[in-house]
Amino acid sequence: MGEKANVGVIGLGRLGSLYATYLQTRIQHANLVAVSDVREAAAEAFAKENHVPKWFKNYKDLLAEKAVDSVLVVTPTSTHKEVVIEAARQRKAIFCEKPLSLSLDEAVAMSSAIEETGVFFQMGFMRHFDKGYAAAKRKIDEGLIGEPIVFKSSSRDPFRPSLEYLDPRQSGGLITDCGIHDIDLARWYFGEVRSVHSIGGILAYPEISEIGDVDNAIVTLQFESGALGVIDMSRSGIYGYDIRTEILGTKGTLQIGYLRETPLMVLTKDGVTHDAVPYFMERFEQAYIAQLENFAENVTLGRPPSITCADGLAALRISLAATLSLKEARPVAVVAGEG
Amino acid sequence: MGEKANVGVIGLGRLGSLYATYLQTRIQHANLVAVSDVREAAAEAFAKENHVPKWFKNYKDLLAEKAVDSVLVVTPTSTHKEVVIEAARQRKAIFCEKPLSLSLDEAVAMSSAIEETGVFFQMGFMRHFDKGYAAAKRKIDEGLIGEPIVFKSSSRDPFRPSLEYLDPRQSGGLITDCGIHDIDLARWYFGEVRSVHSIGGILAYPEISEIGDVDNAIVTLQFESGALGVIDMSRSGIYGYDIRTEILGTKGTLQIGYLRETPLMVLTKDGVTHDAVPYFMERFEQAYIAQLENFAENVTLGRPPSITCADGLAALRISLAATLSLKEARPVAVVAGEG
Amino acid sequence: MGEKANVGVIGLGRLGSLYATYLQTRIQHANLVAVSDVREAAAEAFAKENHVPKWFKNYKDLLAEKAVDSVLVVTPTSTHKEVVIEAARQRKAIFCEKPLSLSLDEAVAMSSAIEETGVFFQMGFMRHFDKGYAAAKRKIDEGLIGEPIVFKSSSRDPFRPSLEYLDPRQSGGLITDCGIHDIDLARWYFGEVRSVHSIGGILAYPEISEIGDVDNAIVTLQFESGALGVIDMSRSGIYGYDIRTEILGTKGTLQIGYLRETPLMVLTKDGVTHDAVPYFMERFEQAYIAQLENFAENVTLGRPPSITCADGLAALRISLAATLSLKEARPVAVVAGEG
Amino acid sequence: MGEKANVGVIGLGRLGSLYATYLQTRIQHANLVAVSDVREAAAEAFAKENHVPKWFKNYKDLLAEKAVDSVLVVTPTSTHKEVVIEAARQRKAIFCEKPLSLSLDEAVAMSSAIEETGVFFQMGFMRHFDKGYAAAKRKIDEGLIGEPIVFKSSSRDPFRPSLEYLDPRQSGGLITDCGIHDIDLARWYFGEVRSVHSIGGILAYPEISEIGDVDNAIVTLQFESGALGVIDMSRSGIYGYDIRTEILGTKGTLQIGYLRETPLMVLTKDGVTHDAVPYFMERFEQAYIAQLENFAENVTLGRPPSITCADGLAALRISLAATLSLKEARPVAVVAGEG
Repeated sequence: MGEKANVGVIGLGRLGSLYATYLQTRIQHANLVAVSDVREAAAEAFAKENHVPKWFKNYKDLLAEKAVDSVLVVTPTSTHKEVVIEAARQRKAIFCEKPLSLSLDEAVAMSSAIEETGVFFQMGFMRHFDKGYAAAKRKIDEGLIGEPIVFKSSSRDPFRPSLEYLDPRQSGGLITDCGIHDIDLARWYFGEVRSVHSIGGILAYPEISEIGDVDNAIVTLQFESGALGVIDMSRSGIYGYDIRTEILGTKGTLQIGYLRETPLMVLTKDGVTHDAVPYFMERFEQAYIAQLENFAENVTLGRPPSITCADGLAALRISLAATLSLKEARPVAVVAGEG
Repeated sequence: MGEKANVGVIGLGRLGSLYATYLQTRIQHANLVAVSDVREAAAEAFAKENHVPKWFKNYKDLLAEKAVDSVLVVTPTSTHKEVVIEAARQRKAIFCEKPLSLSLDEAVAMSSAIEETGVFFQMGFMRHFDKGYAAAKRKIDEGLIGEPIVFKSSSRDPFRPSLEYLDPRQSGGLITDCGIHDIDLARWYFGEVRSVHSIGGILAYPEISEIGDVDNAIVTLQFESGALGVIDMSRSGIYGYDIRTEILGTKGTLQIGYLRETPLMVLTKDGVTHDAVPYFMERFEQAYIAQLENFAENVTLGRPPSITCADGLAALRISLAATLSLKEARPVAVVAGEG
Repeated sequence: MGEKANVGVIGLGRLGSLYATYLQTRIQHANLVAVSDVREAAAEAFAKENHVPKWFKNYKDLLAEKAVDSVLVVTPTSTHKEVVIEAARQRKAIFCEKPLSLSLDEAVAMSSAIEETGVFFQMGFMRHFDKGYAAAKRKIDEGLIGEPIVFKSSSRDPFRPSLEYLDPRQSGGLITDCGIHDIDLARWYFGEVRSVHSIGGILAYPEISEIGDVDNAIVTLQFESGALGVIDMSRSGIYGYDIRTEILGTKGTLQIGYLRETPLMVLTKDGVTHDAVPYFMERFEQAYIAQLENFAENVTLGRPPSITCADGLAALRISLAATLSLKEARPVAVVAGEG
Repeated sequence: MGEKANVGVIGLGRLGSLYATYLQTRIQHANLVAVSDVREAAAEAFAKENHVPKWFKNYKDLLAEKAVDSVLVVTPTSTHKEVVIEAARQRKAIFCEKPLSLSLDEAVAMSSAIEETGVFFQMGFMRHFDKGYAAAKRKIDEGLIGEPIVFKSSSRDPFRPSLEYLDPRQSGGLITDCGIHDIDLARWYFGEVRSVHSIGGILAYPEISEIGDVDNAIVTLQFESGALGVIDMSRSGIYGYDIRTEILGTKGTLQIGYLRETPLMVLTKDGVTHDAVPYFMERFEQAYIAQLENFAENVTLGRPPSITCADGLAALRISLAATLSLKEARPVAVVAGEG
């Protein structure tokens, strides 16, 4: 691999377009050499506007390009298996956006293909690259808070995405779509999860019932270590995009997150007011960019992936168990062999 | 009833002594006319130092006093039933510290005695009188946050009390001793609870195993309304006494709590630092005083109790269900008739 | 002196009544034995309601009482000289509310009387007893921030007091009435002041021009040590009672103050909001009480005053120099001998 | 002018290199077509590494290029006059980094050249493009806080730059180098300044005496409107880069600024701690980028400059008056005609 990874981006949706733009302007260790999207016109338009040498309608054509040594898989989750396995066959270094898949069987198949081909594969969980979450990881590893014993995490969207987006057949449902970030953090900080229990409801948007999901949920976790965890997820944060995590240790506690976007306070007779974080790009742009740089560096420097396919598989296993718990209203064991 | 309640304090432990002192110095609508404690010398010493006209070893003697029209029951929880029922027989207005009892049967017996005698009875849950919690209640009632849909509450002690204090036979265990405040808030803000599920562990203090309790626990709640709740409790807050509650509504969210005790920030090369709230008296002194004033006002003005025996019974029913859930590792229904 | 100081309160205005009430209910080392007020009926009513043994119209009668060994002088500032000197003659231990006087000549006369009689005299500057300000003093003395080099302090009232109250002949004007607290802090933390320069204006309340004062002002200070300082004062804080101080040192910085009264945050689409501190009693009640306890302890234990008459005189000298600077639009030297 | 400005960057020091990099990667409305630096090798290296078509040792050669229609002047301040006047002669659109000059005579000459040639000229004061400062401006203009009456601003560096950098012959001294940002904000929010008064000292770094400057200073301002202002500046912020501004109005107050860089709080027995903002790039990167985009947009869309040469001149006049006040220890009038 040369000094820079030559990257193709597969999927130019909201996140794929951002990733491609970052690659073109913000990432030191990568060149953007190709893009693909089933909407061919979109691919062409993006490529022309952003001076990307090649564009394709069919991702297989992108994967067939020799100039492409690495790919970002940013297609709908239901297509991840097919794209990732083909990319592995073509011996590309792979970055795959979360979640790995919506199906354990598919995820296991992807995992096998990666193992067999030996290609580089890195999962996309951008929170690892947020300054706050990364600093928390370092402090835990340094022993600053002693043994971590309670994990609390909260993910709230400021509004309801479209029902089409939310459809569990596309999104995996609230827990897999939204909570998987928190589940991944839980594993990162605390290790493996033994069992989960979920409660949830349609509390803010009655129309969610049409798609068979919930708009608010709480999942409790028991870790292999005996530690405890809880994640609450909401599609109705209303006041802003609110992502907060707390890690209680035997010697101290860490709190990650913030609520104010603009460094301005307004003080009147009605009180002291500031704004909130509007949405995910305001909160995590730095993390998304750092994540891509890390991928490109790992690829070009021959380093192992920062987040593995096994991490993606394990997080999915937990989110599916939690989704089952919600359905069956009982605690569900998370069994690695069960996948 | 006259202008001021003539109050006897039964039990001069840590909280009972404080209550008696407040009655003597801070409460407008009460006179402290008698105290009792099984440690007779302590009762005498307190009375003499604080100019309390009468003191007793046996609470029954205090209850027999005609000058006493109201009593605070601040004895160990295991004695609440006996004292409260006797106080009801003597037609005293009663304030009973939380929890009502450690046993549903006892609590039901107390409830019956109060109903039969028709005496005034107010449960002690001081958080209702904290400025933050009280303002939150008003804002919810005014509709400011729309429909309340998710309740989150956290109660952390900064250190482990003595094993003697913690013994579940005395304290009721972590959930009843500590979480009952959060459970009561949950009912106050959200109404009745349908089912609970708990997880917990001995994560900070191995010696807790001797007394058959846990030192950290998380309880999820499903309300009759469909709303969701979660309470986390810890004996190992370490950094301070941290009591925080969050109420997510369909139109907004409320957060109650704070972390800084002294209005001082220290900024050095090592960062920006402030202290935390040391313990419950620093956090809730104002609330304890307001609670006593409210009791005395209700009694003297002939108003109904702000928190009823039924509230105490319902909170206990939930805390016992949550404790059972912890033991049996399954969700437990909260059935009012079951008590 | 016995176990408790036997205190008479001279002046039952807003602050005097509070002091008297605190003495009666909150102060361990004091008995309230007499009150006086030129409004005799007010004195009588207060005494009867609060079980104070004696009341007087004329403070001299109070001072003639043998049962009174200590007095709080909480009369209008213009009468301080007369009352304090008479109290000194009667050999009472004296607590005098700030400012010492509105005139340097008077202040010097008071100082002489105290020196000559050797009575105990403590100035009232309650911020010394605020937990935040007191902790800051300790940290400076411990060397935590190295050498203190810049002092910044801000005092804002949430609304305009009555013109009668504000009249400089009564209040001394904005700088002496309001800024003297900050001036006193400046001396406490940084030592003596060499020169001052002031700017000010009538910016919020045109009617202030009637009484010949300003409603906003900024005073810069040069300390003997070379350190720098600035105080801004406002009668138009509007949003709340905002008292903040910052001390920049060569190794760190301290910030004292806070803005939130109720531990509640409201998060809606319009932003994140909390209330502010309404007024001085909400901010400084603890400090006022601690100040009285400290006075009573110093008196009964034979300790020296925590804040001396010389401190009151020095602060006045600076506030008068700053007031002169405002009038003459030039820097003014603060010369101790000039008083 | 075409769709994008074709920009040459003159001066590749710390800030010039950043500007050039931003132009290359972050600015929509600009192409970076040339760079120049007296250190020719540096210019060549930068150009080659960043794919800049042309590089020069002599800025005049850059200005002679037809492909260049706009320039950023980021050379040492002492050269601004020469470079800007030559750029005006060559009819380039000009962006000039603050301060405009260190000399009023030079600044006036620059102003004349710009007027005579009619070229586009925009001053660099990046705080106008910070989200907090920009939002504050909007809120003032909307009347949210009524009439602005007191301006407070604080600029603190976390450490001492090199003496070479600080030398007043290069930097203009503390007030012009550092405080000119605050002075510019003062004018932006409050309008013209009538007089200033400064105090200052060498309080943290004795070696500053070698170069004839101070390391801490406080400047008070009186505006034409009668409003009051104060700016404190420090080279010894120690704990971080701390930039805060407060605007007191007759109906409310605005506070701009923040102290925490990483969204992480650490809570232990020693207190609650977070980090501070390390330095100016962490605080103002977004503003620097927005400032360049605004310049490029104004140039390509034919809009007037957001900050004019007259603004740069007026701010300089105030900073020089404040510097004179520091030297002569007296209030100094700011007279526009005097320049």
